[in-house]
Amino acid sequence: MKNIKQQHIAVFTSGGDSPGMNAALFGIAKKAEQSGMRLSGIRKGYEGLIDGDLVPLDTHKLQKMAHRGGTILKTARSKRFLMLEGRQRALENLKKNDVDALIAIGGDGTFKGLLAFSEICDLPFIGIPGTIDNDISGTDYTLGFDSAVNTAIENIDKIQDTAESHNRVFIVEVMGRDSGYIAIHSGLMVGADAILIPESGADFIYLLDKIKNYDSEDAFLIVISEGDEIGAELVASKIKEINTNIDLRITRMGHVQRGGNPSALDRMLGIRLGVAAVDALLKGRKNIMVGVLNNRLHSTPFEEVVKQHQINDELQGLLELFGNEKYNERIGN
Amino acid sequence: MKNIKQQHIAVFTSGGDSPGMNAALFGIAKKAEQSGMRLSGIRKGYEGLIDGDLVPLDTHKLQKMAHRGGTILKTARSKRFLMLEGRQRALENLKKNDVDALIAIGGDGTFKGLLAFSEICDLPFIGIPGTIDNDISGTDYTLGFDSAVNTAIENIDKIQDTAESHNRVFIVEVMGRDSGYIAIHSGLMVGADAILIPESGADFIYLLDKIKNYDSEDAFLIVISEGDEIGAELVASKIKEINTNIDLRITRMGHVQRGGNPSALDRMLGIRLGVAAVDALLKGRKNIMVGVLNNRLHSTPFEEVVKQHQINDELQGLLELFGNEKYNERIGN
Amino acid sequence: MKNIKQQHIAVFTSGGDSPGMNAALFGIAKKAEQSGMRLSGIRKGYEGLIDGDLVPLDTHKLQKMAHRGGTILKTARSKRFLMLEGRQRALENLKKNDVDALIAIGGDGTFKGLLAFSEICDLPFIGIPGTIDNDISGTDYTLGFDSAVNTAIENIDKIQDTAESHNRVFIVEVMGRDSGYIAIHSGLMVGADAILIPESGADFIYLLDKIKNYDSEDAFLIVISEGDEIGAELVASKIKEINTNIDLRITRMGHVQRGGNPSALDRMLGIRLGVAAVDALLKGRKNIMVGVLNNRLHSTPFEEVVKQHQINDELQGLLELFGNEKYNERIGN
Amino acid sequence: MKNIKQQHIAVFTSGGDSPGMNAALFGIAKKAEQSGMRLSGIRKGYEGLIDGDLVPLDTHKLQKMAHRGGTILKTARSKRFLMLEGRQRALENLKKNDVDALIAIGGDGTFKGLLAFSEICDLPFIGIPGTIDNDISGTDYTLGFDSAVNTAIENIDKIQDTAESHNRVFIVEVMGRDSGYIAIHSGLMVGADAILIPESGADFIYLLDKIKNYDSEDAFLIVISEGDEIGAELVASKIKEINTNIDLRITRMGHVQRGGNPSALDRMLGIRLGVAAVDALLKGRKNIMVGVLNNRLHSTPFEEVVKQHQINDELQGLLELFGNEKYNERIGN
Repeated sequence: MKNIKQQHIAVFTSGGDSPGMNAALFGIAKKAEQSGMRLSGIRKGYEGLIDGDLVPLDTHKLQKMAHRGGTILKTARSKRFLMLEGRQRALENLKKNDVDALIAIGGDGTFKGLLAFSEICDLPFIGIPGTIDNDISGTDYTLGFDSAVNTAIENIDKIQDTAESHNRVFIVEVMGRDSGYIAIHSGLMVGADAILIPESGADFIYLLDKIKNYDSEDAFLIVISEGDEIGAELVASKIKEINTNIDLRITRMGHVQRGGNPSALDRMLGIRLGVAAVDALLKGRKNIMVGVLNNRLHSTPFEEVVKQHQINDELQGLLELFGNEKYNERIGN
Repeated sequence: MKNIKQQHIAVFTSGGDSPGMNAALFGIAKKAEQSGMRLSGIRKGYEGLIDGDLVPLDTHKLQKMAHRGGTILKTARSKRFLMLEGRQRALENLKKNDVDALIAIGGDGTFKGLLAFSEICDLPFIGIPGTIDNDISGTDYTLGFDSAVNTAIENIDKIQDTAESHNRVFIVEVMGRDSGYIAIHSGLMVGADAILIPESGADFIYLLDKIKNYDSEDAFLIVISEGDEIGAELVASKIKEINTNIDLRITRMGHVQRGGNPSALDRMLGIRLGVAAVDALLKGRKNIMVGVLNNRLHSTPFEEVVKQHQINDELQGLLELFGNEKYNERIGN
Repeated sequence: MKNIKQQHIAVFTSGGDSPGMNAALFGIAKKAEQSGMRLSGIRKGYEGLIDGDLVPLDTHKLQKMAHRGGTILKTARSKRFLMLEGRQRALENLKKNDVDALIAIGGDGTFKGLLAFSEICDLPFIGIPGTIDNDISGTDYTLGFDSAVNTAIENIDKIQDTAESHNRVFIVEVMGRDSGYIAIHSGLMVGADAILIPESGADFIYLLDKIKNYDSEDAFLIVISEGDEIGAELVASKIKEINTNIDLRITRMGHVQRGGNPSALDRMLGIRLGVAAVDALLKGRKNIMVGVLNNRLHSTPFEEVVKQHQINDELQGLLELFGNEKYNERIGN
Repeated sequence: MKNIKQQHIAVFTSGGDSPGMNAALFGIAKKAEQSGMRLSGIRKGYEGLIDGDLVPLDTHKLQKMAHRGGTILKTARSKRFLMLEGRQRALENLKKNDVDALIAIGGDGTFKGLLAFSEICDLPFIGIPGTIDNDISGTDYTLGFDSAVNTAIENIDKIQDTAESHNRVFIVEVMGRDSGYIAIHSGLMVGADAILIPESGADFIYLLDKIKNYDSEDAFLIVISEGDEIGAELVASKIKEINTNIDLRITRMGHVQRGGNPSALDRMLGIRLGVAAVDALLKGRKNIMVGVLNNRLHSTPFEEVVKQHQINDELQGLLELFGNEKYNERIGN
């Protein structure tokens, strides 16, 4: 049996790309190199796992790419891996390439895939949470969330310039699928007048109440999560019904939020989690996700990783205080 | 009669806001102050002119705001000024406030308004071209164009990160109303695979020809002007018809392009044109737009200012070379 | 006695300015307004406290300024407050202005000042940690640290472009006074080849060992803390002694790191701590600093707030792994 | 003899790197590819020319790098090329590699090198002006100048945040060697209170006059060119002599100004000049620099390219109006 330090690790990125994935690859490569391990990258997520699309990873090249957005290994969603046949082909290719351990960077779907794969493959798997949605339990931050929020607020700041020049109402839709986490955070940070998220339908009523009295002597900013069931178009049409004088625009932030160089926090998080993933392998751990919880490294077994929308009491309180208080309350009644 | 140096100038911004307007206000204020003139700002464009909404402008405060996006005087479109009654009220308010000259920062619609106003008001008017669309004759650049393009390419660079991570086709819609100027420039700058503009319907055919052979082994970027008659949605559906394997996304850049701190070029242009506008008044000029043509200050009578889409031969050549060559040509047949 | 909800709070910023201070002011203002409290700002830190330089604070205006760097209340260092006479004058002015509670945003020196002041003034004081150095116990992050690091890495990324174009050695000095915290973090994030900090003199020896074999076929980046006792100049001259072929440049990041719009994390932190400070007053707390520890709000009595350089084991491990491993180890001996 | 369309072009970057060089390489590659020409890159400027360090250039890869700072071909200064022996070795290597034409991107020193080389080598040479200093005749802009100024003003904006928070005097040194061009432009754009440049020693006297009355109730910003003979340190010490209450800081912008993604203008300029250089070869031109003068493509024979500091009358007027008016004039005496 191979000494653990002579093992061959393979790493891949999966699901939506997020800023910080390359920093995580750098962290993995540096620690693997120091430990004498061999490291390969698998291209295009589970698709490459099935097709045996392995490439060598060079630490020095990753050092130069750690500050870049996206993922140099490319990523994809894979239907084939949902089928046993796909997973069997993946297993064959791992054996053929003499792989001893797998590290995957992705979201909760990625970890579910690993769990399914573990039924036929007993190699150790380690997961790193990489998604801009920040909706995974067991870690305070997922890779890419802080960068996505930074991109969102920089762009919303620009929209404020034009909103204030025209005394306009702006509805800005930010990403987050079924989670309002990006919307809450970016909305608070830009001083939004209202924040609409999937988790809280009642906010829409407050908004309509508030905007009824809007006098067009200032900008009025609404941040809405793409996952909000009401949707920007319906919000816009309801507002226009209520207050016909309003000059209103909708802007969708879109995929801009996924790209760009990772923020400081995401670079550091990527490096920390990349090193922690290799450390976990060195300690004989398997089938866990490494994360940072309460600012300390933390492991969570794949079975316990769940999708989570962390609107804790403090955040809920801020949301009510800043975004969604009733207009009447604000003016002191 | 008042000595020219004791005159009272009023300035306003009109039409869509654009980065650099505050820099122009700073240039005006500094030159007016040096010349001993009194300066007022009119809020909300022609609406404020009609309502006599004048505020004093402070050079020192403008010095601190010159680097900021939007316009501190706010801007608006005015239906009332299209009517003689509106213009008459504006005239009364100018007289009441003892205004001797007007400077307006805006687009060609703004200058048409001044021309109409000149029929009943013989005060000297000076115009400064401020619009992100760069579609005004008599100046190489309009205030805000360079900033809008810089914002567009920074965001498209971010989209490229995610496009390349997924080998996706991205259609990015940029601003420009009926002008493709922002689309051509930003498309060339980001190395777009195709650029679709209102001025050239034929490009769509080249695009379809090119994408037929796209093998999904790389990102494929299409930049389209919002004014293009085909439109992003139709382009997307046609592409999907031709190549069903394609993973395609549409992103609309939206009002982000109007905001943000002005670029270096726009700050300098604002200062230059602001100073030039006051200089023109000092020299007794009236009813002209000041611009920078061939890198030198230049005046154009309002009558001769026309909307222009400057796709000169060089630009057309670049467009064909980079964006819209037939795919077959690129691969050497 | 006044009902707590009718109290008059005064807030000031003190010491070096840091991005996020305006966000904290916004958080304070919003919560105070909701609670029916009156809020004043004191200009120029302790200097304004002594001189009774109070200004009313407007929530709506702060909403528009929350995303801006610096502090709208201005800040200063005060020698007069070190003297009993200064503190007595401050007390008189607080009484004269009917102030019921004080909130101070600043570093450990600021809190020491409050502690001294508490000997003659029994009003409740609440502190918010605001310094880019992140060297205060009782909070994971101080306001401004994340922004300063983001600014540092964006600029170092730019320097890397030119370093790699020339295969140059660059020594980049970042801020941090006697703390190496900014240097460690930014150095790790940019993939520095060596990181020199006050806390660890031995690293210099590793660096010299490493650079002896540097072959000028790539950039070589050294990040050094301004507080490092060896200093950039001496490092440079020692390197040139050892390897005379080296093309070396020194860049000092300087005060750029203090400015700029606060990052996402700092905006959120400012809002959270601002609200928490008012909450603490509402709950009758006094003489504590509010912070975020392990991602949860946390209070620390002023007596227990100490200067801290948080180089925990994980961070120390990363530093050794990335920045300061011996060159020979890296190449596998 | 080879048909011109079958020729082998080699390109190199020389002197200091500047943002936009990669965009120019992309322009060259695209046009060469379309024309059926073969293209090689020479690494490390004249050093690589002497050593025959040629690499193939791939248009598609350059398309992905066009938006990046620095130069992928790397650059260097070469003492060997100053010697006939070096140039002879370069000639041999060009022959050995069957090179038919050379394109060089660099400053006036680069073009002087080509002129010297033309004495022994009759291949056609084309130059593209690439330097952040903007000090070359025959073109309105050199590649990199606009990017450098944008970087400078973004950083000075950040410094203003902290300067205003502390009511401090800041002396900011920007690049430009013996040219004050970056200092004038960035100084005007940020609303500097004084601008000190090599071309105008008298400004220092105005500055001292102005600062004598500075009351420390605001920030005071001095932008100085690195080439100014007085220097930031001496300016600082003289100011402190005159006004002992002043809280003053010096910041040197340094090599940050050379790096970073090229601005919109520089990307476009790079593409335009790259295409124009190949076009010139196709038209049989030789020993000329291509530039953009008065917004049109323009050729200048190497013999006529001179170093130039374009402080024309308009710019001089702005400098006097904004930066260096006497303080007494500003306050109206």
